[in-house]
Amino acid sequence: MRAGNAAKRLLVGRPLDSGRLGETLLPKRIALPVFCSDPLSSVAYATEEILLILALGGLAVLHLAWYAAVGIVVLLLVVVASYRQTCYAYPGGGGAYVVSAENLGRRAALTAASALLIDYVMTVAVSVVSGVAAITSAAPSLDGHAVAMSVFFVVVLAWMNLRGVRESGRWFAAPTYAFIAVVYLMFAVAGIRMATGATIRAESAALPVEQVSTYSGLALVLLGLRAFASGCTALTGVEAVSNGVPAFAKPKSRNAAMTLAIMGGLSATMFFGITVLAMVYEVHVAEDPTELGLPPGTPMSTALAQIGRATFGDWHVLFYALQAVTAGVLILAANTAFNGFPMLASVLGRDRYAPRQLVHRGDRLVYSNGIVLLALAAITLIVAFDAQLTRLIQLYIIGVFVSFTLSQAGMVKHWRRELATPAGATYAGAAYAGAAYAGATPAGAAPVARHTIRRRLAINAFGACLTAVVLVIVLITKFTHGAWLVVIAMPVLYAGMKGVRRHYDAVAAEVAVAPGDRPHTLAENHVLVLVASVNATSLRALSYAKTLRPDSLTAVTVAEDPAEVEVLRATWEAHGIDVPLRVLSSPYRSIVQPVMRHVRDAPERTGDSVISVVIPEYVVGHWWEQPLHNQSALRLKTRLLFMKNVVVIDVPYRLASARELAAESTGTPSA
Amino acid sequence: MRAGNAAKRLLVGRPLDSGRLGETLLPKRIALPVFCSDPLSSVAYATEEILLILALGGLAVLHLAWYAAVGIVVLLLVVVASYRQTCYAYPGGGGAYVVSAENLGRRAALTAASALLIDYVMTVAVSVVSGVAAITSAAPSLDGHAVAMSVFFVVVLAWMNLRGVRESGRWFAAPTYAFIAVVYLMFAVAGIRMATGATIRAESAALPVEQVSTYSGLALVLLGLRAFASGCTALTGVEAVSNGVPAFAKPKSRNAAMTLAIMGGLSATMFFGITVLAMVYEVHVAEDPTELGLPPGTPMSTALAQIGRATFGDWHVLFYALQAVTAGVLILAANTAFNGFPMLASVLGRDRYAPRQLVHRGDRLVYSNGIVLLALAAITLIVAFDAQLTRLIQLYIIGVFVSFTLSQAGMVKHWRRELATPAGATYAGAAYAGAAYAGATPAGAAPVARHTIRRRLAINAFGACLTAVVLVIVLITKFTHGAWLVVIAMPVLYAGMKGVRRHYDAVAAEVAVAPGDRPHTLAENHVLVLVASVNATSLRALSYAKTLRPDSLTAVTVAEDPAEVEVLRATWEAHGIDVPLRVLSSPYRSIVQPVMRHVRDAPERTGDSVISVVIPEYVVGHWWEQPLHNQSALRLKTRLLFMKNVVVIDVPYRLASARELAAESTGTPSA
Repeated sequence: MRAGNAAKRLLVGRPLDSGRLGETLLPKRIALPVFCSDPLSSVAYATEEILLILALGGLAVLHLAWYAAVGIVVLLLVVVASYRQTCYAYPGGGGAYVVSAENLGRRAALTAASALLIDYVMTVAVSVVSGVAAITSAAPSLDGHAVAMSVFFVVVLAWMNLRGVRESGRWFAAPTYAFIAVVYLMFAVAGIRMATGATIRAESAALPVEQVSTYSGLALVLLGLRAFASGCTALTGVEAVSNGVPAFAKPKSRNAAMTLAIMGGLSATMFFGITVLAMVYEVHVAEDPTELGLPPGTPMSTALAQIGRATFGDWHVLFYALQAVTAGVLILAANTAFNGFPMLASVLGRDRYAPRQLVHRGDRLVYSNGIVLLALAAITLIVAFDAQLTRLIQLYIIGVFVSFTLSQAGMVKHWRRELATPAGATYAGAAYAGAAYAGATPAGAAPVARHTIRRRLAINAFGACLTAVVLVIVLITKFTHGAWLVVIAMPVLYAGMKGVRRHYDAVAAEVAVAPGDRPHTLAENHVLVLVASVNATSLRALSYAKTLRPDSLTAVTVAEDPAEVEVLRATWEAHGIDVPLRVLSSPYRSIVQPVMRHVRDAPERTGDSVISVVIPEYVVGHWWEQPLHNQSALRLKTRLLFMKNVVVIDVPYRLASARELAAESTGTPSA
Repeated sequence: MRAGNAAKRLLVGRPLDSGRLGETLLPKRIALPVFCSDPLSSVAYATEEILLILALGGLAVLHLAWYAAVGIVVLLLVVVASYRQTCYAYPGGGGAYVVSAENLGRRAALTAASALLIDYVMTVAVSVVSGVAAITSAAPSLDGHAVAMSVFFVVVLAWMNLRGVRESGRWFAAPTYAFIAVVYLMFAVAGIRMATGATIRAESAALPVEQVSTYSGLALVLLGLRAFASGCTALTGVEAVSNGVPAFAKPKSRNAAMTLAIMGGLSATMFFGITVLAMVYEVHVAEDPTELGLPPGTPMSTALAQIGRATFGDWHVLFYALQAVTAGVLILAANTAFNGFPMLASVLGRDRYAPRQLVHRGDRLVYSNGIVLLALAAITLIVAFDAQLTRLIQLYIIGVFVSFTLSQAGMVKHWRRELATPAGATYAGAAYAGAAYAGATPAGAAPVARHTIRRRLAINAFGACLTAVVLVIVLITKFTHGAWLVVIAMPVLYAGMKGVRRHYDAVAAEVAVAPGDRPHTLAENHVLVLVASVNATSLRALSYAKTLRPDSLTAVTVAEDPAEVEVLRATWEAHGIDVPLRVLSSPYRSIVQPVMRHVRDAPERTGDSVISVVIPEYVVGHWWEQPLHNQSALRLKTRLLFMKNVVVIDVPYRLASARELAAESTGTPSA
């Protein structure tokens, strides 16, 4: 424990006071990288995912990428506009769960929560894996270590987040802005070079794209829609801003909506620009190198890496810079989930849909348990899917659009209720502000004109319809390619959360008391002290037992070895101990069973009386001393817990090593 | 726990009474397979290990196998003769540890114990792995699953041994006797076929043995000695009989000595016969198939499998029978260790060189903890060495000869002391009989004539010298081939056991009390009850606290959420609870720290007074309910243990699920 505590302080820093929560509020320039690195960075792989699907239909269908890209840009702008309304309506944090819970009821909320939990895990897995792909595109020799590298980065992210949100925000700003800068620089270089007459082609432009099968009619439309669905990864993580409104500097809602708009502009232009370059450079990609006429096992660069290499040409430094910042921003994109997941888990825990220990903040103003849980789940996925991006991405989009649709539909309901109340009423969402983010007061909750509300309603209604359509498209085109796993996982999570809530409700009902019930002194307290020999531990336990002024006091020993019992009896008498010593026979050579039987059959254990079993316990200061002591006591305690009218009392005797440890730890405020 | 208990009963049977220990004594026909399956079965691989080493020197040096084989037979007979004396001298069990402890002192005993512990683990690993090799020799398609199969068999063995020694003895008799029968049948068939003019050659006879390097002079001698050292695996496990004397039916010593003699005769003839056939059939083996001119990765049969295939020819049934019984006896040979290891661990625990929980017998008259520990260690080795026999076997022989040498040297000392005392004195070793095997009276402890003692001394002295010489040979020839690991592991184990003893001695000294010390009532007992809300659990805890008639009684709550605290205060007053409620502020949003600080700074925690912290605990009946409750309580308890003058009292509140579980378990005697 001593080493553990010191290590914890070293790794995650000193505990922070609740009063300092205000200090961790984020200005826009920090909030953008913290909450938007996910949607911003997904432009690094969205184009490639479109091309990968279209490659199945051969060169002839690659032009469909234009339609998919335009569709995605429109969708992105609609969703951003839609979520900007949420930022104004829910200054206390308007995640899909909160919005659904307030407007659509418990079932919609739990559905949204299941979708969100899965998507947070997917965000971590997909972002980190594609960040590692950016690294291996620049350094193909690392190709075989993708799983190990991905797991390493997840662990690093978890560690940074355990240190707290603001510090990690600072860390994350540089790579995000660098990524944006390098991508726009790439656009500029490409534009200037092409304007001055250069013909730029990707390294894969000359490779044949072998048509896997012929697509026409409905099949062609479906292939196009599937490409569109794959490209929708560009939209993941938009919700993070609306969820994190209370973490913004004041005016919270305005700053959050502004950040969303900036993000939308950056994402849309970067995604469209990359797609344009990919089409112009004739970037050819395929899941399997053999489809491009290459030998099996040939390492392949990502589409963005090919574009960068072609654009920057001999300026290798810029190409490596692009790969470095791409890897950086992708790995940090996972941070969006590390911000969102523990916050959602905490809200779920508060509503008793998740274990209570997810509710409490840890030392560093963050939800440590949730962070650890998220990292473990993401690592499991990465290992199970062997760090293969294209397989992971199939699981990604369904949850995103489930929560988009529910969230927008909830907002429609919200605005309609606003319209039904007299103008100037405060926001319904404000109630959540205090609960979800203690210490943060709802800002920006000023009355709004009715025509503004009508405009907002219209935006959200359009957003809800559009995302619902996309959800259906995603479900149809991706179900057989792996998305069925999510379709199974969501109801499982849903049922799990319902089960936890049912358990807590049942327990609360079970322990409820009638008004006026009050504690009373029990009829009798009979105390048994377990002893093995006469030493400081047993004398201490006997002394404590006497202090309880019990109705009866008996020392109990188990006769494992008749010789030892005789020694004990003799010592007992020599010391003149005035407590009767009872020897229990042990035909099965166990210590636990005779004591259990003795307690079970004790006539005193009736009605309103209780038997207190006092167990002397050795407290040691080193972990390796632990297995040398108290093993039988531990097993006995576990069993006695289940017995009616029995209470177990550990009387600790701290050995020298434990006293040293205690002396050290009482010196610090965390003792 | 409900399911766990039922499953335990189903798997390991009902608990046995101490009085039934006599029933588990073994007649010779059962004792032979139980204690001798290790030395008997090692003839299945000893010959091959000799040939593998000599193959390094090419065809020209293969004839050295004759010398090695003769040397091993002589050594085996000497060691058997030597251990027969131990059976007479130590009817209570004369393992190397006991003999060394009594005659050579603590250091020799711990050295022997380290060697034995390692060898028991090696016996399990080597026997099971070579048993699996016998299976893959008959069914080469299983070649890739050696690790999984080996681990499976270790688990099965552990399970059988947890059921108890006699039942497992019965299981083990059939394969051992079948193995002996099939091997002798093979000798008979080979003899008759060759006598009638057949020329039998192994499948590998025509393969070239590529000389790895040229050996001559001292190098040749060393190669021969290394082959001899490898063949000494045939001797492993001889000690088991002398260790297990008290498990024999009466007259224990005579029966044990007789069993040893039978084993020696069988082992020597089988080993020599197999070696003769291997030489006549020109069996060629190598660690790597390329040394025999085969393509890499070719599955190779064991030497014994080749001999069997050549001898039985078209009688495939007999060949498969040979492989089946070989696999059976090898896997069961590991059972020798499952008998010996827990017994030794128990004796070490009794002498306080091992954790106390290894001392106590489990439910089925066996040492469950030791069995589980042994299985885990063997599985670790098998996995670490990838189930490769030749790599494992390098670690095997050193420990065997360390314990042989110490044991024989101890016996020399023992007989010299016997000669020094008047004729007719009882055996010193008898003292251990009661301790090591409660309920078994030392049998065969009759006075012996002095010339008999002199003969025994001579036999043991010769045995000690011979095994010491072999130990040196083994050390020299195998050190660089992996045996250095054992040379490191032995001192580590030695130091570990010394450390455990030192810890127990220090603790005993620390808790020792002056004569006449007796328990007294402490000055004051101040009770704090932790509450979160007014419900049945907190009322129960308060009631219990009142029953302790404390000097002060306070309810304590942590102010995590101000709103909740207000609700609690109101309910508290509404119920009219006459215990003062103290609200602790929680600036770091932790439940544990405010309580720790409050208790630490309490002025009552001084001198001879004590603070009792009462924690209401939810007791649940299902394992999956566990993480939903008591998490903060658990962390708090762990921390409070280290605080001076503090006692923690859990007042359990059993929820409905726990009451169901308790109702079921109180019906059975194990409740």
